[in-house]
Amino acid sequence: MSDSPDIHQQAGERLSFEPKPRNLDAYVLGEKVRTIHYGLGAIGSGVVRALVEDPMMEIVGAIDPHPSKAGRDLGEVAGVGHPLGVTVSYDADRVLNDLYADVVVHCTGSSLTEVYPQIVTLVSSEKSVISSCEELSFPWHRYPEISEKIDQRAREHGVRVLGTGVNPGFVMDLMPLMAATVSRRVKSVHVTRVVDTSLRRIQLQRKTGAGLSVKGFEEGARGGGIGHVGLRESLFMLADTLGWQKLDEVKETLEPVTAKQKMTTDYFSVDRGSVVGLKQSVRGVIDDREVIRLDLEMSLGATDPRDTIEIDGTPPVRLTIPGGIHGDVATTSIIANCVPYMAQSRATGLLTMRDLPAAPYYARPRSRD
Amino acid sequence: MSDSPDIHQQAGERLSFEPKPRNLDAYVLGEKVRTIHYGLGAIGSGVVRALVEDPMMEIVGAIDPHPSKAGRDLGEVAGVGHPLGVTVSYDADRVLNDLYADVVVHCTGSSLTEVYPQIVTLVSSEKSVISSCEELSFPWHRYPEISEKIDQRAREHGVRVLGTGVNPGFVMDLMPLMAATVSRRVKSVHVTRVVDTSLRRIQLQRKTGAGLSVKGFEEGARGGGIGHVGLRESLFMLADTLGWQKLDEVKETLEPVTAKQKMTTDYFSVDRGSVVGLKQSVRGVIDDREVIRLDLEMSLGATDPRDTIEIDGTPPVRLTIPGGIHGDVATTSIIANCVPYMAQSRATGLLTMRDLPAAPYYARPRSRD
Repeated sequence: MSDSPDIHQQAGERLSFEPKPRNLDAYVLGEKVRTIHYGLGAIGSGVVRALVEDPMMEIVGAIDPHPSKAGRDLGEVAGVGHPLGVTVSYDADRVLNDLYADVVVHCTGSSLTEVYPQIVTLVSSEKSVISSCEELSFPWHRYPEISEKIDQRAREHGVRVLGTGVNPGFVMDLMPLMAATVSRRVKSVHVTRVVDTSLRRIQLQRKTGAGLSVKGFEEGARGGGIGHVGLRESLFMLADTLGWQKLDEVKETLEPVTAKQKMTTDYFSVDRGSVVGLKQSVRGVIDDREVIRLDLEMSLGATDPRDTIEIDGTPPVRLTIPGGIHGDVATTSIIANCVPYMAQSRATGLLTMRDLPAAPYYARPRSRD
Repeated sequence: MSDSPDIHQQAGERLSFEPKPRNLDAYVLGEKVRTIHYGLGAIGSGVVRALVEDPMMEIVGAIDPHPSKAGRDLGEVAGVGHPLGVTVSYDADRVLNDLYADVVVHCTGSSLTEVYPQIVTLVSSEKSVISSCEELSFPWHRYPEISEKIDQRAREHGVRVLGTGVNPGFVMDLMPLMAATVSRRVKSVHVTRVVDTSLRRIQLQRKTGAGLSVKGFEEGARGGGIGHVGLRESLFMLADTLGWQKLDEVKETLEPVTAKQKMTTDYFSVDRGSVVGLKQSVRGVIDDREVIRLDLEMSLGATDPRDTIEIDGTPPVRLTIPGGIHGDVATTSIIANCVPYMAQSRATGLLTMRDLPAAPYYARPRSRD
């Protein structure tokens, strides 16, 4: 408190300094991080475009069995704008056996039971895995056996596995957990994410039911294909981290948002009364008190798009991102940003975003040991 | 993408599950964390009040040489409302020699050169240290030798040292670094913090120059006592983490905010034209481009108090905390929240907030090794 701020002597100081060590893990220095890219849809291709400009990264392989992609140059498939000299292969086993790499960027699906065999193959080839699979973001509760197996296998092979993305992975789980660092006696967490899908990918618009009748939406919600995957994963990461292991009830609801008037987008023409998107919520209740509430609205022309986090604690924290974090761009950025940590950490096993340090993209320190 | 959301089967699920392992470090399980509290001013006492209610914590010792505190019961000195059975000692060496503890909560001052001998003594007694010392939050650039020595000594004794608080430590450094996780090609970071000090501690009001004439403010800014300590520490944490080790220029400015009309608070009566607070800024420049700008205003009756973070990147991120995070309460909460990590991590040496995982307060997992 008695410190002199010493302001005036500091004006115009010229600075150049060595990167400081990150203390938590000792990193390997100097070598480039070698990546293989498995799955070249919108997210997988976006990660390629994000990494290709990073001089610390070296893309060594690519896998996608789709006939429109296999056999072509990765730069072309991923929309980089120039060839990368890496041919997309349909044959995962061969790429994994033939190539040395630190990290596989895995973007093939949302369902953990579907992608589980791929994850096991990747880990068994002694490569760490960062995946956009929503259900992998915090799978311990919903898939305890698969989680245990992935964790075990990754430890055996000395590698790491992480599922991440903007949501789940950031807005509704990591960001409130970070914000809660300034608060004690946290009584509840409420996150609201409102996304205007009108300028987003057709896949997202379809996933939210745009263009369907209400009956078609309900059918899709039951049969699959309609709905966001990840709310429960976020809820469980919050509950587990905040010490709420005993939830009396977890309620999830999904309902259509309908057009108040005829709407037209690049992909859809929606009549009044038809579906423009969805509202999906999950709530965790203890002693009749809602301790966690996650509200997601994704619809064409949604008003006041935003991300809002409200933490009832000491002190309370209310945080808003007007406009909301852009979903696809942020997901590719997060995945690209986590690659250095995944390559260089000494941790092994199944990680979740709460296990990573702030700024996982920072990985250029000197080796310490 | 083909996953079924499976919504309807989840309504009303009852849950009870085991805490999941944090993967990054293996923690010791089951034992309480033992703390010693060194410095019982507003912050130090606040941390005692925050920890005393936590069943995982055990306060074993307290140090404060001030005659109004030494010899009295800690509960009384810290305003807990009941005695804690721990007597505040004036004799740091004796407490450190006599008592086993995991972590010392250290809240004695802002100046690293002043508190450095205390830190060395604490570390040498094989206790980890979490400190409110602002200059310890990222000391590598400004005090490279002291940083190296603390780091070295802490490693030798197998313990950790961390400086933290709401600012520096969170709002202007950790929070923008966290937010940048969703963004690539970050071109600049701009943080604004506006604090209305009218309801805050007299110490803070005095530190910001309230009640002084403009001449008195300038004198205080030169001679010490006026100004916020920590802007440069935050700037260096940002610059170092975001890869901006070559800053052409770092400019810091400090100016008074004056009363537009007569103002009266519990502690001050300020005439029109006299000082109600300060505006302090630090900027980091590369190639004539401002890559980091941190603006802090702290004044009586400041309008629109808030914390705002703007990241120019892909995607851009703009995040606002209307009202701003409450300084003192948040500082005590952050320190209390970091104690579990400081007690149980395996990392050794001088840490900074960027080295900790999100949710450092989460530390109740099963031991894994």
